[in-house]
Amino acid sequence: MIQAGYRGGTVIALCGGIGGAKLALGLARVVPAEKLTVIVNTGDDFRHFGLAVCPDIDTVVYTLAGRANPQTGWGRAGESWRFMEAVGELGGETWFALGDTDLATCAVRTARLADGARLTTVTADIARALGVGCAVLPASDDAVRTVVETADGDLAFQTYFVGCRCAPAIRGLRFDGAATARVSPEVAAAFAAPDLEAIVLCPSNPYLSIDPILAIPGLRALIAARRAPLVAVSPIVGGTALKGPLAKLMAELGLAVTPATVLAHYGDLVDVFVLDTADADQAGDAPRLRVAPSVMVTLDDRIALARSVLAFARGGRP
Amino acid sequence: MIQAGYRGGTVIALCGGIGGAKLALGLARVVPAEKLTVIVNTGDDFRHFGLAVCPDIDTVVYTLAGRANPQTGWGRAGESWRFMEAVGELGGETWFALGDTDLATCAVRTARLADGARLTTVTADIARALGVGCAVLPASDDAVRTVVETADGDLAFQTYFVGCRCAPAIRGLRFDGAATARVSPEVAAAFAAPDLEAIVLCPSNPYLSIDPILAIPGLRALIAARRAPLVAVSPIVGGTALKGPLAKLMAELGLAVTPATVLAHYGDLVDVFVLDTADADQAGDAPRLRVAPSVMVTLDDRIALARSVLAFARGGRP
Repeated sequence: MIQAGYRGGTVIALCGGIGGAKLALGLARVVPAEKLTVIVNTGDDFRHFGLAVCPDIDTVVYTLAGRANPQTGWGRAGESWRFMEAVGELGGETWFALGDTDLATCAVRTARLADGARLTTVTADIARALGVGCAVLPASDDAVRTVVETADGDLAFQTYFVGCRCAPAIRGLRFDGAATARVSPEVAAAFAAPDLEAIVLCPSNPYLSIDPILAIPGLRALIAARRAPLVAVSPIVGGTALKGPLAKLMAELGLAVTPATVLAHYGDLVDVFVLDTADADQAGDAPRLRVAPSVMVTLDDRIALARSVLAFARGGRP
Repeated sequence: MIQAGYRGGTVIALCGGIGGAKLALGLARVVPAEKLTVIVNTGDDFRHFGLAVCPDIDTVVYTLAGRANPQTGWGRAGESWRFMEAVGELGGETWFALGDTDLATCAVRTARLADGARLTTVTADIARALGVGCAVLPASDDAVRTVVETADGDLAFQTYFVGCRCAPAIRGLRFDGAATARVSPEVAAAFAAPDLEAIVLCPSNPYLSIDPILAIPGLRALIAARRAPLVAVSPIVGGTALKGPLAKLMAELGLAVTPATVLAHYGDLVDVFVLDTADADQAGDAPRLRVAPSVMVTLDDRIALARSVLAFARGGRP
């Protein structure tokens, strides 16, 4: 096992979907399952065909289970699309792709939630059934829904992200429900671990993936009371985002598309900020900055970045 | 076209699922699409995984569309089961089989209903998309839910029928919501057709498939005011039911498993009652009884029975 000989403490990672899940997988190959907790954005969640769809949670679970579609990063490997084809024949909505087996995850979750189970419990059971060892926790059991404020009006996140392919210019973001959402006992327990060694902000979209988590008041308080370094990995590399609408969004909000903007956005939350080697010249001598290869193409890249992040948390170099 | 030369009036058929759908198909091959209305039981409908499942409506639509699974009579031809397999892997409920493409019907319906569409409208759109020409109408847009009262307590219909495989002894039946359910404008319009020529009670289960329709107060009134003969086809042939729990149910209710029991159950509603040739000796000289082959194995059987039923309605012989 890769984790053999691990002598560190417990690790918490906060992430969104595809990009963040890559580092989560790297961490899962370095940190023993019982010492790793991945807290996942729920702001992208929505109901589709009446089913509870949790894109980021499922991407993280599938990725950690080794079941993610390697081509897309989302959805399941070996997926089939009979359902979507049949929906199309009936004139139903086909803008959001739900594969036949991905749909099963949503259906099982929907049924469990309708029976009164918490999203945390359902997620744990699904993750376990697919063979995931570490804890995957929704940021909250209470609904948090990202709303994208655009020139075309307010759009539910998936309408903006998938339906409109991020085309409308963003004027602002809000997270409906976040102000009253509660931290779950499981999330609180993770932060209370006596051997907590690092809190990792994965290179997910700070505004769309990490902010909906941080917007939960109790969660910010837990981080504020932390007893372990918080290490954030820049999602901006070489002046752009590797994936998704981050660079476009930052530009539309009038922000410079640089790691420094992201660091400023996170502010005092961050103890260590990891830049990609491509941006090493931006590191200067700022005490919080570190440099490591952060473009994760292979599994080895994911593991290497995970090792770097943990080394930085321990005050060392990778 | 088989319907070429049709000189008759409009026809209404009331039916449940598989057995009734066979005669509905026969009628659809004899009666032009614009002159046939099939009114379908909704008492079996339920929510599963949060999706609106309408087993009888879908069986009728698939059958009329030539898309039904010929082996089972329910579900779609060429179905795949990736969804169900994945649900099983996740420990979800697999007692009710929903194929990947069948699921699409449920999902599209669920989404449309959530948007405020009536079940009648949604059903018409789905039927049209699959190429069904005649009108397929839910008995009501209001929820009617068959509850099976058993020694093990009250069971939702699908729990009894599929989940328990009809094993619990039936003590009674009730149709929750029926008393306040309203007849839709489309159902009322079908009965108001000036050239209405026949009302057909298909050989569906009288207690489980036809009664939930008849339990809608307005519908009984429409039939009572009918200007066309009502022809019922006995679902009991040779002392038993060809399909489903009818014979067992009748025995459990202390009823003789005979066509006479069914006719007595329908009572004055029926003008003509069709016995299978196997039961010709039971016809006696009762003025309402007619005899015709009613075991529908082939498409030709379905068409022949449809022709017989229409001939009886016209006061003749097939």
